[in-house]
Amino acid sequence: MAEKITPRAENFSEWYQDVVLQAKLADYSPVKGCMVIRPNGYSIWERIQKEMNDRIKASGVRNAYFPMFIPESFIKKEADHVEGFAPQVAVVTYAGGKDLDEKLVVRPTSETIINSMFAKWIQSYRDLPLLMNQWANVVRWEMRTRLFLRTTEFLWQEGHTCHATLEEAELFTQKMLKVYHEFSENVLAMPVIPGMKSEAEKFAGALRTYCIEAMMQDGKALQAGTSHNLSDHFAKAFDTMFLDKDGKQKHVFQTSWGVSTRLIGGMIMTHSDDKGLILPPMLAETHVVIVPIVPKANMAPAVYEAADKLAAAIRENIEVLKLPYKVGVQVDKDDTKQAGWKFHEYELIGIPVRIELGPRDLEKAQAVFTRRDKGVKEFIPLADLPAKIGVELKEMQTELLEKARSHREQNTHSVSDYETFKRELDEKGGFFKVPWGLDRQAEEQIKEETKATLRCILLDDSFKPIEANQPCFKTGKKEGTVMAIFARSY
Amino acid sequence: MAEKITPRAENFSEWYQDVVLQAKLADYSPVKGCMVIRPNGYSIWERIQKEMNDRIKASGVRNAYFPMFIPESFIKKEADHVEGFAPQVAVVTYAGGKDLDEKLVVRPTSETIINSMFAKWIQSYRDLPLLMNQWANVVRWEMRTRLFLRTTEFLWQEGHTCHATLEEAELFTQKMLKVYHEFSENVLAMPVIPGMKSEAEKFAGALRTYCIEAMMQDGKALQAGTSHNLSDHFAKAFDTMFLDKDGKQKHVFQTSWGVSTRLIGGMIMTHSDDKGLILPPMLAETHVVIVPIVPKANMAPAVYEAADKLAAAIRENIEVLKLPYKVGVQVDKDDTKQAGWKFHEYELIGIPVRIELGPRDLEKAQAVFTRRDKGVKEFIPLADLPAKIGVELKEMQTELLEKARSHREQNTHSVSDYETFKRELDEKGGFFKVPWGLDRQAEEQIKEETKATLRCILLDDSFKPIEANQPCFKTGKKEGTVMAIFARSY
Repeated sequence: MAEKITPRAENFSEWYQDVVLQAKLADYSPVKGCMVIRPNGYSIWERIQKEMNDRIKASGVRNAYFPMFIPESFIKKEADHVEGFAPQVAVVTYAGGKDLDEKLVVRPTSETIINSMFAKWIQSYRDLPLLMNQWANVVRWEMRTRLFLRTTEFLWQEGHTCHATLEEAELFTQKMLKVYHEFSENVLAMPVIPGMKSEAEKFAGALRTYCIEAMMQDGKALQAGTSHNLSDHFAKAFDTMFLDKDGKQKHVFQTSWGVSTRLIGGMIMTHSDDKGLILPPMLAETHVVIVPIVPKANMAPAVYEAADKLAAAIRENIEVLKLPYKVGVQVDKDDTKQAGWKFHEYELIGIPVRIELGPRDLEKAQAVFTRRDKGVKEFIPLADLPAKIGVELKEMQTELLEKARSHREQNTHSVSDYETFKRELDEKGGFFKVPWGLDRQAEEQIKEETKATLRCILLDDSFKPIEANQPCFKTGKKEGTVMAIFARSY
Repeated sequence: MAEKITPRAENFSEWYQDVVLQAKLADYSPVKGCMVIRPNGYSIWERIQKEMNDRIKASGVRNAYFPMFIPESFIKKEADHVEGFAPQVAVVTYAGGKDLDEKLVVRPTSETIINSMFAKWIQSYRDLPLLMNQWANVVRWEMRTRLFLRTTEFLWQEGHTCHATLEEAELFTQKMLKVYHEFSENVLAMPVIPGMKSEAEKFAGALRTYCIEAMMQDGKALQAGTSHNLSDHFAKAFDTMFLDKDGKQKHVFQTSWGVSTRLIGGMIMTHSDDKGLILPPMLAETHVVIVPIVPKANMAPAVYEAADKLAAAIRENIEVLKLPYKVGVQVDKDDTKQAGWKFHEYELIGIPVRIELGPRDLEKAQAVFTRRDKGVKEFIPLADLPAKIGVELKEMQTELLEKARSHREQNTHSVSDYETFKRELDEKGGFFKVPWGLDRQAEEQIKEETKATLRCILLDDSFKPIEANQPCFKTGKKEGTVMAIFARSY
């Protein structure tokens, strides 16, 4: 039998690790800070890639691949960038039996190497906008790692675009944030708050960073994706220029944006329970498992046959419902394992729908239907099951999102003074919506005193910071305050 | 206008480089030996990934992801393996601001790191067979590199499986070679000869290596994929063991197999011509480009409208033909470029079908159809075009394969003595089918004297070497000779 999962209420962090390891989503590797993504976890990443890739391409972006090694001198060309990333890089100093003349940094992100190519490819305004993306592994040396959420090597997509004007770059930065927002909610069923990072938290080298922030079940925040307006910072460092319509050579304005395997961790901590993984149907490889119940061996042929028939009926009829993914149906005929063991196992690995089918059910032309997130058994006529499953898969996707959204609402607190903030942060956790005076020193002090950070500045529909019209909750400063979210985070 | 492509007859190697660079498939990067795969090239890789992934999954294999860093001590655990790869590795010695206690090798292949996990995961015969694959970047420090064909960093898939017996491992090794064989011919339209590598040429650490060998237009061979029976070599080095049904602990038997971005290079050198890329329709993103011909500006609206209508009709009706890929149709309304320039450009980047449509054609309710590989203009009634295009795309896929196969047949020579071999190798090039005595020293000598290598030992349907029943073409040894292919290669 499987090991016990630590209940969330007892220790959320151990619960998370138990789910990831026992559901065989990922494992620790012999290399410090690097994880192995096992097939159960990688199939989720493949679904994420497929859905995100469709959205990226629909935005007019094409995929490419750039070298993972970056000459050390490149990283140093943009002053903020090197300051942000230098302490985290892994460096190849020796290759092909020789010490290298120039050391090679394993990419922590690719703005620099990509700019060296953009500078070569871009000639005139006709080459703009230039919209590219790559799916790749990146490396950032981390002191404290956690499976999926923060690992030394991780997988991601990084988009990089060039535009003729700062305004166009700004609009594209916003466009991709909206893509991430829609994706998180409709694919991961993970509600997110879009916003802007503070000067202290923005990407090293960016003019401005937008982000989406999700709330985990323990009330902590998780940054789930970022979109950066790079202005002409990297273009100036690499001389990425174009001949404009007016005959003048100008620097391009750029954006970059990325989401990573961290999304898998966020999705797990948003939905799963003490029995194991709860997976939004959009991310599942197998959606339905049929467990034949065979009290005596001679009953097996009839039950197996009925189970196979049912599986075929589900596969066939579910097409009609036009779900946006291929529905995987599996019949578990392994007779070396008890039904109870199987129920436990499929709950652990998060199969969205379980069907039990035994001789008695067959007599009544019914089967037992259980949705993973609800855990309630229902007796359903066999003829109704395919349609029922289609409807339930759709509803499960929506209800997981709504459940998470309502959890977030319940754990988001509006406070207007620092003392209340500190007390409620310790008592209740969650997100704190506050009037904020944009003071960098105050931000640092809050972090030191409470371990809470500024997650994002809230924005209106046109991406302008929402005015607070109240004094800053920390400094009491009265003018020019904006609404912001503070929270402890992963 | 674009630069000139060196004709194949003048310099095949320069022709290849011209096609790759001018069709914007790949570019040189500032990092020695590393290439950038540009969108036109990466879209081909995406199609290869999709088709290969479907086949890998249909073989019961699941995808996973293992760390790219391998502790240096791991590489050293298997004696042949370290000897084969040590001279080629890139090594991270410094990370996170410190010298590392144990240096990390950037994976040249992943047998070692994967075995360290397999050893942990596999308990009993119930866990076997264990079938995994990963899509990843790998690094092998190369002295002489060539875009796609041999680069320091490249992209590939590497499959790794564990079995209870040597025989099962052997059968799986053969199974995946057959998958590669079918894939090369049906997807890349690149005919290949399956065979076995000699002891000198097999994978470092394998018991036996099978391969597929393709012939390029210049008669040289290209190794296009390999499948290795690893026996228990790595299992012994890493103690990858299972409890068998008989209650005994035994080492597992393993396989590994891979194809890489090299396939793109092979595909280019198989089909393309002096005008640029010729792309099998299975690998195209855009299959049909419609070029409106607009002699006077006031004719544009009518011609554009007709072109859009035609594009819609093609997209709609082609569904009926059930082609195994989504047919991409594009209308080029860029009025800053001449039609002649566009024809040249679309030939260069290898769009399979070009349609020209002008006011005169419209009067006659026809358009001009040209297939990239044939280059012959045909006037076709508009109503017939969608069906015509579907049929032609299917035929183009088949005919490219047949053309390449017939080129290979014409350039494969059976010789039985070394003098004839040497003379014909210089005069004609191509593949040489010879009776071979399996002598390692003779193999080395042939390589030194002629630069030709043993590409593979030919096999019958049950993967047994085909007996030659003739004396070895090099040593004259009479007994136990087999049929083999020698050729110069990439």
